[in-house]
Amino acid sequence: MQTPTIPKGTRDFSPSEMAKRNYIFDTISAVFRLYGFQQIETPAMENLSTLMGKYGEEGDKLLFKILNSGDFLAGVDAAAWQAASLPASKICEKGLRYDLTVPFARYVVQHRNEITFPFRRFQIQPVWRADRPQKGRYREFFQCDADIIGSDSLLNELELLQIIDEVFSRFKIRVSIKINNRKILSGIAEIIGETEKITDITVAIDKLDKIGLENVNAELSAKGVSREAIEKLQPIIQLSGSNEEKISVLRNVLKSSETGLKGLEEIETVLTKTALNPLAAELELDLTLARGLNYYTGAIFEVKALDVQIGSITGGGRYDNLTGVFGLQGVSGVGISFGADRIFDVLNQLDLYPDASTQQTRVLFVNFGETEENYILPLALKLRKSGVPTEIYPEAAKLKKQFSYADDNHIPFVAIAGESEIAEGKITIKDMQSGEQKMLRAEEIVHLFA
Amino acid sequence: MQTPTIPKGTRDFSPSEMAKRNYIFDTISAVFRLYGFQQIETPAMENLSTLMGKYGEEGDKLLFKILNSGDFLAGVDAAAWQAASLPASKICEKGLRYDLTVPFARYVVQHRNEITFPFRRFQIQPVWRADRPQKGRYREFFQCDADIIGSDSLLNELELLQIIDEVFSRFKIRVSIKINNRKILSGIAEIIGETEKITDITVAIDKLDKIGLENVNAELSAKGVSREAIEKLQPIIQLSGSNEEKISVLRNVLKSSETGLKGLEEIETVLTKTALNPLAAELELDLTLARGLNYYTGAIFEVKALDVQIGSITGGGRYDNLTGVFGLQGVSGVGISFGADRIFDVLNQLDLYPDASTQQTRVLFVNFGETEENYILPLALKLRKSGVPTEIYPEAAKLKKQFSYADDNHIPFVAIAGESEIAEGKITIKDMQSGEQKMLRAEEIVHLFA
Repeated sequence: MQTPTIPKGTRDFSPSEMAKRNYIFDTISAVFRLYGFQQIETPAMENLSTLMGKYGEEGDKLLFKILNSGDFLAGVDAAAWQAASLPASKICEKGLRYDLTVPFARYVVQHRNEITFPFRRFQIQPVWRADRPQKGRYREFFQCDADIIGSDSLLNELELLQIIDEVFSRFKIRVSIKINNRKILSGIAEIIGETEKITDITVAIDKLDKIGLENVNAELSAKGVSREAIEKLQPIIQLSGSNEEKISVLRNVLKSSETGLKGLEEIETVLTKTALNPLAAELELDLTLARGLNYYTGAIFEVKALDVQIGSITGGGRYDNLTGVFGLQGVSGVGISFGADRIFDVLNQLDLYPDASTQQTRVLFVNFGETEENYILPLALKLRKSGVPTEIYPEAAKLKKQFSYADDNHIPFVAIAGESEIAEGKITIKDMQSGEQKMLRAEEIVHLFA
Repeated sequence: MQTPTIPKGTRDFSPSEMAKRNYIFDTISAVFRLYGFQQIETPAMENLSTLMGKYGEEGDKLLFKILNSGDFLAGVDAAAWQAASLPASKICEKGLRYDLTVPFARYVVQHRNEITFPFRRFQIQPVWRADRPQKGRYREFFQCDADIIGSDSLLNELELLQIIDEVFSRFKIRVSIKINNRKILSGIAEIIGETEKITDITVAIDKLDKIGLENVNAELSAKGVSREAIEKLQPIIQLSGSNEEKISVLRNVLKSSETGLKGLEEIETVLTKTALNPLAAELELDLTLARGLNYYTGAIFEVKALDVQIGSITGGGRYDNLTGVFGLQGVSGVGISFGADRIFDVLNQLDLYPDASTQQTRVLFVNFGETEENYILPLALKLRKSGVPTEIYPEAAKLKKQFSYADDNHIPFVAIAGESEIAEGKITIKDMQSGEQKMLRAEEIVHLFA
């Protein structure tokens, strides 16, 4: 017998993995809802015209394309095929969702007349990428996004920080939240006259701790940043201290850049608001934070776990033009995305999953046969009506087998009704962990678990 | 501007549709869990070798196939292409899940060493079929299945009936549950000597109410059922009365068929058990029920809504050999599948969705600007910490616009803190439905909603 498999980079979720995944998604959704975010879902398949060209050339290659159904060969040119230059678009018009952002942008444009702006939406769905699978990277994985669109207010940035803080507090994961602003980075590039080298600069600065100041400067020089510009960059490379101290240095450096000062003002507003409503997590202004630089136009966020060595577990930022690519201009917004797979790993490593899931079976009734079954059935029904997940072993198997079943499924209590219990109208309850047994009146059983 | 669209037969789910869908799935999952069913999920993509040949020739055509990523043209024969006889398997090795049964069978075989049998699993996921889209039929839709495998006990049939009953009680949908048994149908075919005409026979019998006895007999004759067999079928065609009355007629008709009597005994056991633990729904023995005839080997279930004209809203049955096709013999089981889309329609038509979703925002704080925002923020945070979904309008827009936002989003209360409220440490709460306003001390706000 050849065991069947699943496509590489995909996963089955067993009951225990589902319990963990549900815990993560339920926690995050609950916090999203507390902040008024509304859930939407979009189809797994989008038209390729919606997806193509939105993720760069590399991204286009990573799209999973779906073969047209029916007679997909009709009208295809054999010569083009032979030349191996047949565009996939001839035989494919649909692809699997690559992220949640492009489908969301498409959704907003398509339903713009039904939406009241500002629109707070969240979306938790799988996405698919034909990436080379490796440890921790899958071809099917979940994204978990919240965005507020149609509002420039910095209150939204504050609320996203509060959401991040509340989510990780609930998970009991200690985190540091990094914050930056694209306008500050633009201001720096403007000041030193190296607008197009901003990525090289942030990458080099990020290495300060690892390679030291001299090597950072050498790397900048190697990347073609002028001696004069490197000179001007020194206070920024060596930026340290509290957020206030950093801001005061930056205010001086950026004094001649309008854009830079605007970014600084935005960060200050957000910091002031969080000072009035303090977070549990530390919030650190970090100039090396440059994720999605081409996309974000204002705030940039990133979250790191303090007690586990792992990359960013949440990120986000503000953007100017979500839907421009679909012809609808002027829809700006700010959003965050929780990295579900990494959070899954962090919770595992720190052993932070809550103990017994309330979703699991709490009582297994042992089955001795017909008569006993008829005695048990109304009791089991009563427990279920009271909200206690309950099972009856479906046949009168050997007792050892029935107890193993309880063990394997981590069922904490076994209920036993044999001849003597039935004669007395009672039931014996065994605590599987302590081994303790007690006999009680059948009608009391609900009180024990409810 | 050309509005982007989604592939035909697929759907976006707006926040209000998501709330309804979540209500349906949450209700069904909660009942599944009460009966000890454990959730699993499988990947959207399966290997085509897993899917092909499992749904008949027609089913194979309806599979969505995924183009191999990367250089999918390498090694493909141009002549075969030209002849339009290229098998899709050359350029596709994966397909989208067509139902939940085959992936479940694959899961059981692949993970057989981790599973403790009997295994009670439930699974709620979308499936995809390249069917011609039409009203109520989609290319992406959800299935909602529960199965118990590795047990022949009829207790499982009873529990599935109890689950159906509990789910529709919670939905407040009045239903009739039809039950049949494949062995009874086999017995009938055996008795009248028309084994291969069993489907024609059930189809004809099903028309009795519509076309009358004479026409049913004429149709049977036209289908090639012998005069003698039609004669023997008369008590079965005219079967009526209570379940007990039907069984007593059947016992007489089937007396020389071992299989038929076995089926009858099974139905009786299930009916006796439900008599001891009565259902809210009526349970009717219906011989015309023949769904999935080639698949089911014992009990067959179907649920009809009493107050809406719509097809079956749930179905299921017992099968002998779930995993045989993957080489693992002897895994029998019984399962049900809730028809989520039809239940969605029934709840809509009968207006049975529960009123306000607890998941929706309950309070919107009006925004008058910086000072007021700082006064409001800690109050909003307090409400959220107490579990009350709360929003602050993100900018000091015109009051009319802010109230429209509350209206459009069905937010029941608006909280107002202007100069006078702040001076007194108070907050005004407006009930959006009654128009009633009251001013209270800021710290009292939690008591109002919690």
